Amino acid sequence: MTPPQKKLHLAVIGLGLIGGSFALALRRAGYVRHISGFDTDAEQAQQAVELGVIDQACTDIAATVAEAALILIAVPVGAIRQVFSEINGHLLPTALVMDAGSTKGSVIADFHAACADHIHQFIPAHPIAGIETSGVAAASADLYKNRTVILTPTGQQTNAALQHAQAAWQACGARTEHMQAEQHDVILATTSHLPHLLAFNLMQVLHGQHHQAELKACAGGGLRDFRRIAGSDPVMWRDIALANHTALCASLRAYINGLEQLATELDAGDDSALHQRFTQAQSLYRQLN
Amino acid sequence: MTPPQKKLHLAVIGLGLIGGSFALALRRAGYVRHISGFDTDAEQAQQAVELGVIDQACTDIAATVAEAALILIAVPVGAIRQVFSEINGHLLPTALVMDAGSTKGSVIADFHAACADHIHQFIPAHPIAGIETSGVAAASADLYKNRTVILTPTGQQTNAALQHAQAAWQACGARTEHMQAEQHDVILATTSHLPHLLAFNLMQVLHGQHHQAELKACAGGGLRDFRRIAGSDPVMWRDIALANHTALCASLRAYINGLEQLATELDAGDDSALHQRFTQAQSLYRQLN
Repeated sequence: MTPPQKKLHLAVIGLGLIGGSFALALRRAGYVRHISGFDTDAEQAQQAVELGVIDQACTDIAATVAEAALILIAVPVGAIRQVFSEINGHLLPTALVMDAGSTKGSVIADFHAACADHIHQFIPAHPIAGIETSGVAAASADLYKNRTVILTPTGQQTNAALQHAQAAWQACGARTEHMQAEQHDVILATTSHLPHLLAFNLMQVLHGQHHQAELKACAGGGLRDFRRIAGSDPVMWRDIALANHTALCASLRAYINGLEQLATELDAGDDSALHQRFTQAQSLYRQLN
Repeated sequence: MTPPQKKLHLAVIGLGLIGGSFALALRRAGYVRHISGFDTDAEQAQQAVELGVIDQACTDIAATVAEAALILIAVPVGAIRQVFSEINGHLLPTALVMDAGSTKGSVIADFHAACADHIHQFIPAHPIAGIETSGVAAASADLYKNRTVILTPTGQQTNAALQHAQAAWQACGARTEHMQAEQHDVILATTSHLPHLLAFNLMQVLHGQHHQAELKACAGGGLRDFRRIAGSDPVMWRDIALANHTALCASLRAYINGLEQLATELDAGDDSALHQRFTQAQSLYRQLN
């Protein structure tokens, strides 16, 4: 990726792992000349300056974005509408605004509600980065390397905005893919949001049933794989679940239906049905790997 | 662990990762003088000899165990009863027999049915080893190091048998814990067997809903954690599910019930109920780590 002829002013709202890694990657790529940043947690913002992630911590969102050519809003989905309302009216006419949220339909609706006059400047984005850590201290210029970033253009954007969005993520080392927001939300409901609900629910079933000492002794195998996501932030996942509520409910109902069939087969001791079911699952697993 | 004064003859039935690692660990600990082995797959048995895992590959089970002081039966749960019937009447009076199966009630019932006269020589065992690979080529003398091995004594064993079982696993570097077979099966139903069913079911829901190209693009985050177990052997897990059918059905019904409540809260947009639910889950996750 060739750096732009004139290096840009980047603004990052939300100085966590996602926003911080975007800043580090674009700085390393020679893409930016100045990075302003804002976080509701002033200590996090100060740490971002100290770590060299941003050049300047601003005290309000309007000032952070006012001179920026590229703006990434990397706050939890539940907080994004408020940020949109605070950037409204403060953007340069050629600025590009992107979010990095895990749901896209709700984010687009929030943008329309809070910031409609700027809709041609907005490209919804979702970096699929498989995150196990959080906070600006964990940010890395390599986070997006060889990762996929799903862009879900609204159809109301300018060509320049879309090209800029692609170029910025590619400068981070990522691949970009385009998808309809609705399709993104339906797929992510099952590949990401549902697995989090399943892991949370497993923890609750365990909690209701057993003593901890014995659980610890037996916590190998399958449970270990569920634990990482069961440790995810409850507020963030409540907000994602509610923001993608329709698609997630449909996915959850289909999942429950599958479990009901499985329980029936198990009750009946139906070995051939179970074998067929598990073989199909393994086959899809192999296709995805 | 001090090696026994007189080194032992070990027999291993089932020369995969579990049996092979047990042989390698005990050899390294100076615990054994000779290791005989048997596998229904003659190539696997030959490979075990070539890799130095066993000294001698036998062509039948009775001959494998006839002179052994310690016998580990590390075959899938669905094949274990047949092995018990083939060792019956061929054991030295002081020999110790252990299995390594993921279910314990069914294994004890199989032993009673096929090998009842030797019940005082039998200690049911389940090493919790978090296995991602299989086959004798993956066997390692370190597999059990710092792992927990659950022993579920029947109450009919001799003291010498129980002491020998503990000593052998400790020589492999493992901790041993005692538990009732019923309690083991109830806990493992939720910590291990249920997560496998959940991962298989997630693959099936995905398979029914989406195109693979888009799934691959979106397969970060939660899905990744489910994939490893969804790739587990369908026959092995069918047999485990059927062998632990009662406890697993109960666990599955409790799990479905939790998901139904979650779906209702999601349908109602009940943010405080979801928040409370996810917070409880994260709290148990932290206690288990």
